[in-house]
Amino acid sequence: MTQTLPPQTCDLLIEAGYVVPVEPHGLVLEDHAVAVRDGRILAVLPTAEARGRFEARETVSRPDGALIPGLVNAHTHNPMTLLRGIADDLPLKVWLQKHIWPIEGAVMSPAFVEDGVTLAIAELLRGGVTCVNENYFFPDVQAATYRRHGFRARIGLPVIDFPTAWAASDDEYFDKAGAVHDQWRDDPLVATAFAPHAPYTVNDANFERVRMLADQLDLPVHLHLHETAQEVEQSLKEHGQRPIARLDRLGLVNDRLIAVHMTQLTESEIHLCAERGVSVVHCPESNLKLASGFCPACALERAGVNLAIGTDGVASNNDLDMFGETRTAAILAKAVAGDAAALDAFTALRAATLGGARAIGFDHLVGSIEPGKQADLACVDLSALETQPLHHVVSQLVYATGRHQVDDVWIAGRAKLRGRQLVDMDADAIVANARQWRDRIAGIRVG
Amino acid sequence: MTQTLPPQTCDLLIEAGYVVPVEPHGLVLEDHAVAVRDGRILAVLPTAEARGRFEARETVSRPDGALIPGLVNAHTHNPMTLLRGIADDLPLKVWLQKHIWPIEGAVMSPAFVEDGVTLAIAELLRGGVTCVNENYFFPDVQAATYRRHGFRARIGLPVIDFPTAWAASDDEYFDKAGAVHDQWRDDPLVATAFAPHAPYTVNDANFERVRMLADQLDLPVHLHLHETAQEVEQSLKEHGQRPIARLDRLGLVNDRLIAVHMTQLTESEIHLCAERGVSVVHCPESNLKLASGFCPACALERAGVNLAIGTDGVASNNDLDMFGETRTAAILAKAVAGDAAALDAFTALRAATLGGARAIGFDHLVGSIEPGKQADLACVDLSALETQPLHHVVSQLVYATGRHQVDDVWIAGRAKLRGRQLVDMDADAIVANARQWRDRIAGIRVG
Repeated sequence: MTQTLPPQTCDLLIEAGYVVPVEPHGLVLEDHAVAVRDGRILAVLPTAEARGRFEARETVSRPDGALIPGLVNAHTHNPMTLLRGIADDLPLKVWLQKHIWPIEGAVMSPAFVEDGVTLAIAELLRGGVTCVNENYFFPDVQAATYRRHGFRARIGLPVIDFPTAWAASDDEYFDKAGAVHDQWRDDPLVATAFAPHAPYTVNDANFERVRMLADQLDLPVHLHLHETAQEVEQSLKEHGQRPIARLDRLGLVNDRLIAVHMTQLTESEIHLCAERGVSVVHCPESNLKLASGFCPACALERAGVNLAIGTDGVASNNDLDMFGETRTAAILAKAVAGDAAALDAFTALRAATLGGARAIGFDHLVGSIEPGKQADLACVDLSALETQPLHHVVSQLVYATGRHQVDDVWIAGRAKLRGRQLVDMDADAIVANARQWRDRIAGIRVG
Repeated sequence: MTQTLPPQTCDLLIEAGYVVPVEPHGLVLEDHAVAVRDGRILAVLPTAEARGRFEARETVSRPDGALIPGLVNAHTHNPMTLLRGIADDLPLKVWLQKHIWPIEGAVMSPAFVEDGVTLAIAELLRGGVTCVNENYFFPDVQAATYRRHGFRARIGLPVIDFPTAWAASDDEYFDKAGAVHDQWRDDPLVATAFAPHAPYTVNDANFERVRMLADQLDLPVHLHLHETAQEVEQSLKEHGQRPIARLDRLGLVNDRLIAVHMTQLTESEIHLCAERGVSVVHCPESNLKLASGFCPACALERAGVNLAIGTDGVASNNDLDMFGETRTAAILAKAVAGDAAALDAFTALRAATLGGARAIGFDHLVGSIEPGKQADLACVDLSALETQPLHHVVSQLVYATGRHQVDDVWIAGRAKLRGRQLVDMDADAIVANARQWRDRIAGIRVG
């Protein structure tokens, strides 16, 4: 005799033509549903079964949709979204010294940070991104802005050897870092990390303070590393060591390290990263656009290094499109490795989700569609003719999907995008505000 | 005394926030209008002035739009759109021999070509592309399909050393080529070119016949060339010459040559191309995805070679997105050249329009917004938050715009896309048909 159990209640049932859970690797579930309660994933099961087992307060049905974990953009400078396209096609030094830094100097303020982050969140949500690893000044403002919009973020606490609008001295950087960390230490969406800027802008003493405090507070260390050949040369000249060797001497090459860019790596450095549990954030489009070099993404991944993907700031990209970035990572890896089998579609999608979550220490919370994890999800419409015929779902997601095909986004079970409309943000007001910033920035004299 | 002339009539007046004519280079016109009569551009002038000077049967007003020349996709295999994502992440030889060729062998037919081209045209129009340089079998079916949909195309007449569904012998290839050429020689939208497949699949005698006939009929020669290092090695082994040297011996390195890929080039080969007026079609995403190599796009462009951009077939891309392709070309060129100033946004946009038109001998017709040229135009909406703030129009178009922001497309003055809707194609029927092909192709046993 079959016993029929009474249905369980849940807040949300998402029925999708395809569910790509990312974990287990390589799996595509057809006609499956995800049940959500209290912001968490309760179950992943065939839709037909789900309808009998759950009584949902809300059911969202997407027969042409692929449900994926919300994408994790593992390296951003989101306030810079207001500088989109302000200076392109320039050598790195001219770009930074004659354009970006003078403009930032003129506009850097809590309002710039708040408005830039707000514009970025809207863009990210419309592109299926639910979590960022942020790296900029005024982390207090950033944290409050992400939190207000219900967006998940790891916020970098900046450390740099010279004074900025955020802090005037080493002590002030560390004092303010501690204060911001304290304020957000128990938040369900926002956490902090140390973000020493780069090997060429942070001295040994400050790196040592970062290491000590990161150990003490159990925080990741988010760092631009081996971005260019010049960085490596300069370090050899000034410190007699390549940057990663210098960091190793200072005790920072370990599983707290989120190493961003990494275009200059020897084979032994790749193996060092693998052994020590370093995560590498690959930002292919920024590396190409600034002519920084080519990250050996496939070699890193095959050596066992945890690989994540980031867009970098909009000023050097010029968007926050993680679909485009993941596609670029997947195809560029093949040419760099000289192997068309490098960084296949499943592996690229994992880097853009679980790899990012793991890099920033959020993999117990997000990055895959598994019971118990937070319901950070994106649903992609595959019915448009640009994604037809549909021979392979994950190939389509990585190699043929535009971010505008993202229809729905949830963070911790709360709808943030519904039928491409932002649920709780005013897109028109955000655009109007961006236009005001354009006029203000256009008035700045540079050079 | 000022004399007021009576307004001229025109068929269409397009008023745009921005007009980027491509020629003259580097120009962005604000609040300008384009007047169209009998399919041609009559005038480009300030909107305020246009309203007094023209009485238009139809006026389209796009204050947030950037009007650009329709993009020219300079290398396609559009019937293969039905094979989107059928086989990815495989070494080139396995990909071709175990997947693409067996599947093509099973499906190659007039119906496959017609349906694939139809799906491709719909995708291209929705992405602002108005012209292609096509390279596949059954050029007769292709030509009829492009013509029926009012789409501009240069159709390759295939020549390859082995029998296919299209032709069984050398003579049949050339006979059929002549017949297709004759049929379309005076068409306003469709023209032909010779398309010998590649140096490793065409013998000297066939190349000589191509040269003779191309001269006689005044046609371009569309050829995959120096795509991979293996191709160059094999040619050295078999012919004692690099492919381009062999072609030079056969009299084919001249301004008729449309050389596609070109990832393997010495400095003297780059200068040879410049001297002889060869056009190079850069297909960056296919080159990356198949791990073919890196085309020195910036070196070619700086040497004075006419540079065009193509997506290649969808089976190795996996889309026909010329916005994405142009962006990839622009950022990849910088990393390959080690110079962030390489292939700037204006130059990349020119390659995607006028460069393509010039490569295929259509530059007297299209590729720029100039009086007398055909009204092949695309209007891009820049009001979305993904393209805000708008500091520089052409930076936005190249580095931040998604093809889904194309709102309107005209070919020879006829509306083909209006508010993102296809004007004279049935998108639902095209998708339904693609789904049927998916099922049919899924039933083919491969390997």
